[in-house]
Amino acid sequence: MNKQVNFDDYEVGYDIPAAIGMDEAQIATPCLVLDLDALERNIMKMGDWARDHGMRHRVHGKMHKSVDVALLQEKLGGSCGVCCQKVSEAEVFARGGIKDVLVSNQVRQPEKIDRLARLPKLGARTICCVDDVENVADLSEAATRHGTEIECLVEIDCGAGRCGVTTTPAVVEIAKAIDAAPGLKFAGIQAYQGAMQHMDSYDDRKAKIDIAVAQVKDAVDTLKAEGLECDIVGGGGTGSYYFEGNSGVYNELQCGSYAFMDADYGRILDKDGNRIDQGEWENALFILTSVMSHAKADKAIVDAGLKAQSVDSGLPTIFGRDDVEYVKCSDEHGVVADPDGVLKVNDKLKLVPGHCDPTCNVHDWYVGVRNGKVETLWPVSARGKAY
Amino acid sequence: MNKQVNFDDYEVGYDIPAAIGMDEAQIATPCLVLDLDALERNIMKMGDWARDHGMRHRVHGKMHKSVDVALLQEKLGGSCGVCCQKVSEAEVFARGGIKDVLVSNQVRQPEKIDRLARLPKLGARTICCVDDVENVADLSEAATRHGTEIECLVEIDCGAGRCGVTTTPAVVEIAKAIDAAPGLKFAGIQAYQGAMQHMDSYDDRKAKIDIAVAQVKDAVDTLKAEGLECDIVGGGGTGSYYFEGNSGVYNELQCGSYAFMDADYGRILDKDGNRIDQGEWENALFILTSVMSHAKADKAIVDAGLKAQSVDSGLPTIFGRDDVEYVKCSDEHGVVADPDGVLKVNDKLKLVPGHCDPTCNVHDWYVGVRNGKVETLWPVSARGKAY
Repeated sequence: MNKQVNFDDYEVGYDIPAAIGMDEAQIATPCLVLDLDALERNIMKMGDWARDHGMRHRVHGKMHKSVDVALLQEKLGGSCGVCCQKVSEAEVFARGGIKDVLVSNQVRQPEKIDRLARLPKLGARTICCVDDVENVADLSEAATRHGTEIECLVEIDCGAGRCGVTTTPAVVEIAKAIDAAPGLKFAGIQAYQGAMQHMDSYDDRKAKIDIAVAQVKDAVDTLKAEGLECDIVGGGGTGSYYFEGNSGVYNELQCGSYAFMDADYGRILDKDGNRIDQGEWENALFILTSVMSHAKADKAIVDAGLKAQSVDSGLPTIFGRDDVEYVKCSDEHGVVADPDGVLKVNDKLKLVPGHCDPTCNVHDWYVGVRNGKVETLWPVSARGKAY
Repeated sequence: MNKQVNFDDYEVGYDIPAAIGMDEAQIATPCLVLDLDALERNIMKMGDWARDHGMRHRVHGKMHKSVDVALLQEKLGGSCGVCCQKVSEAEVFARGGIKDVLVSNQVRQPEKIDRLARLPKLGARTICCVDDVENVADLSEAATRHGTEIECLVEIDCGAGRCGVTTTPAVVEIAKAIDAAPGLKFAGIQAYQGAMQHMDSYDDRKAKIDIAVAQVKDAVDTLKAEGLECDIVGGGGTGSYYFEGNSGVYNELQCGSYAFMDADYGRILDKDGNRIDQGEWENALFILTSVMSHAKADKAIVDAGLKAQSVDSGLPTIFGRDDVEYVKCSDEHGVVADPDGVLKVNDKLKLVPGHCDPTCNVHDWYVGVRNGKVETLWPVSARGKAY
C-alpha cells in the first residue's frame, strides 16, 4: 500500500497547499489542482476504449508520478499496470502497490541494474527495455544474483530517434540473447513513437504510425518464425492510441497525458479536425495561480512562473477565459495581459500547463477538487525520482 | 541552524545521488554537482567586489534555494543576508539561520501575509516589497496582531515589466503610507531590472541600467526631500552589478547566478567583449548525466531530460567538450550528437544548464565535489517552496 500521509505533520500554505474539506477559494497558490470529475471521466473513457478494442492499457506513470492516480487508473480504467522511465520511479510504484511495472527505458548503470533486479522482491512483475546485446549479460547477472526474474522487451526505435534499435536483425539478435540468459525472460517489443504525438494533423500522425506498425510487424513476425512469441507489443500515446489499438500488431497501450491533458496536446486535432481537448479529453489538471500585482492597468502579475511549471512546450493557457492571456513567464512571475483591467489582486486563475509531465515534476502535491471543495491531497510520489 | 541531515535514512541512487567520500565516478545520475573550488572562488570574488565598492551584497536565495550555500555566501562572501521570492522560501532561510531576509516580491494572500508577520519570531529581520497602497493596511494589521515589525521597500518597475510602480509620485504615496502604518517600517526601494540581465552587449545593458538609475535616483531624492531616508536601495544582478554598484544611488546588490553560472548567462559579454563565463565567473554547477544508449552510431542518449532541468533559456551545453553536443531534450532523454562515435554507454558528461534557477528547483540535492571526491551533500532546502 501507498504510505499513509499524516497531514498533522504539515502546515497549509507552506508544506501543503490545502487542507481536505477546504473551499477551493482558500487554496494556497501556486499549486496543482485536479478536477476529480474530469479526471475520472478521462480514466474511464480510455479504459473503455482499450477494453472495447481488446487492448491492455499500461498507463504511463512518468506523466503524473503519483501512486494514487495509478491506483485510480487501475480501479476505474482497468489498467494492467504502469510504465515509468526510471528505476527509482518503478520502486515508488511497486512500493505503492502496483503489481506490474515496466521501466520503458534502458537501464545501464550497475547500481540501477542491481536495484531493478531487486524490484520483484517488492511483489511487482518487473520489466525493462533493452537495445544493446551487451546489456543482457549485466541484467542476467543481477537477476541471477538476487534470485529474481527480469522480463525484457527489445526496444525498437520506430521514429522517435532516441533509444532503440532500428532493424529486425538487431531485434532478433537481442531477443535471442535475452531468451538464452538465466534470470531473464524475453517478453516482447517496446515501440513507442514519441516524436509524432504532437503533430497537429491526424493524417500526418497516422502516416508516421503506419511506418512504425510495419516495422514492428516485421520484427514480431520474424521473432515468431524463430520461435519467440511476444507477450507484450507495447506503445501508443494520447495522440496515437487508436492507430496502435487498431493495428492488429500492438497489444498494450501506454498512454499518459490523456488523464490530465495539457495545452500542447490539446492543440492536436482528431480525425474530424477538432482539437482533442474539445470533446475527446477534458482538462483535469490546472496550475492554480493568484494575481499578486496589478500596478500597471493593462497587465496582471501572477504567482506561477518557471518554478511552478515547465514551458518547454509553450506557455500555459488560461482555462475558461478569453478576456485575459498568459503572455510571459519568468522565474517567479507570470505576466497576464489584461487589456480591459478585469482582474483584481488575489483573483485566481486556472492555468492549463503547456506540458503536463515536467510541470507535475516540480510540485509536491495534487489538490483534488470536486464541487468547489478540496476532496483529497495526493503526493507527487515519484517527484524528482530521475535516477 | 539548518536541520541536520541524517544520511542513514537515505539510500544512494534513489533518495540521494551520492555518499560523502565517494569517487565522483560513482555518483548516480542525473543529479546536480557543484565544483566546490569554483563555487568558493565565485563567492569570494563577488564578496570582494561588493566590499571594494562599498556595497552590501544581499545574495539571491531564489537561485539556489539552499541554506548551506547561503551560509557559505555569508562566511566567504560577507553577504548581509538573502533575498528570496516567496514567503515559504523566506521561512526556510530564517529557520536555517539567516538573520536578514528580504522577500523581494509582493505578498498579497492573507495567509501569506500572516506568515510573513510571524517570520521575525524566527529571529530574522523581515523585509518585503510593496507596489500597492492597499497592501499596506493588510501588512500593518498582521504585524500589529503578531507584535512584530515588517520592513517594507517600495518596488519600482525600472524596466522589468513585472511588479512595481513606475512613477515617483506613486513611490512617495506608498512610502508615506508605510511610514504611517503601525507595525511597518519604511526601509527603502527595491528596483531590480530583470529584463536586461541577459542582453549580450555590455553597452545595451548599461543603457538600460542608466535609465533605471535615473528613475531610482529621482525617487530616492524626492523621498529624502519628504523626510524619508532609504536604508536600502536594492537591485542588481549578475549581468549588471557593476552598473548599480558604481551608480552612487544603489547600496545593496542582489546577485544570484554568479555563484553557479549557467549557459544563458555565460553567453553575455563583459566590457571587453568576452563571455562572462570565460574569466569573470566560473561554471560551478553541472547536471551530471550518463549515456544510457548508443544504438545509433552518431548519437548518444543521456539520462538528463526535462525532469532534470529547465530548458526555458535554451539547451544545456556540455562542459569541456567540443566533440559532442546536446541537441534535443525530451521528458527523460537528452540526445547528444556524437558524430565521431567517441562516447560509450555509462560515460558521464557534465552539462551546464541553460538556466540555473528553475533547474535547481527540480532537484533535491547538491553533490559537492572537490578533487574528484564527494565532499558534501546539501539539500535544495527550499525546493518546491513556491507559495
